[in-house]
Amino acid sequence: MLMVSEVEWSNTEREIAQKALETAFQRESDMMVNLIREKSGEISCLDDLWKLHDFLSARRHDIDGKYDDSQSMFVFVFARLIKEGWLTIDELDGLDRAKVSKVSLMTRM
Amino acid sequence: MLMVSEVEWSNTEREIAQKALETAFQRESDMMVNLIREKSGEISCLDDLWKLHDFLSARRHDIDGKYDDSQSMFVFVFARLIKEGWLTIDELDGLDRAKVSKVSLMTRM
Repeated sequence: MLMVSEVEWSNTEREIAQKALETAFQRESDMMVNLIREKSGEISCLDDLWKLHDFLSARRHDIDGKYDDSQSMFVFVFARLIKEGWLTIDELDGLDRAKVSKVSLMTRM
Repeated sequence: MLMVSEVEWSNTEREIAQKALETAFQRESDMMVNLIREKSGEISCLDDLWKLHDFLSARRHDIDGKYDDSQSMFVFVFARLIKEGWLTIDELDGLDRAKVSKVSLMTRM
């Protein structure tokens, strides 16, 4: 059995993967922008502001690491994005079945 | 000549200093809260959000270090707060003249 990282990705598959990644990123970005605009309306003192800062630090660290677009990471990244609700498995339609199965399996781990 | 840090502060002077510090802190806090609420209305993408995060990181670092309430630092802290516009020299009324002169001199450095 080939390791996930050694599996070949066709050009079409890479395009599908890239598009799925962008879709998830856009969704999470939009949610974050709306959330922060909402949260900032509730800020009334410096302490609230530093709480917002802590929240942004954590989210930035998380998001910066998450959208890894190296081919060898696609399966892991998609499994995580699906688990977190930023992507659905059917948005990977067009990928080789074995890859989709692996993603699907990982989301249940 | 005594070093600033060796100068005696009476109880009344310490109270005046503490109050001035709180006044300046409250002003800067209020400005920050309003500014961030304003800025957050202009956020439309994740990149804007990270710019806000960078701005908060810098301001937090700055504010955390600025409001030092150790007696030996009062003169330096007040000079800075006056220079930055968070306090006026007449809000130090009641302090010994020599201290006020030192603060005043430092604001012009």
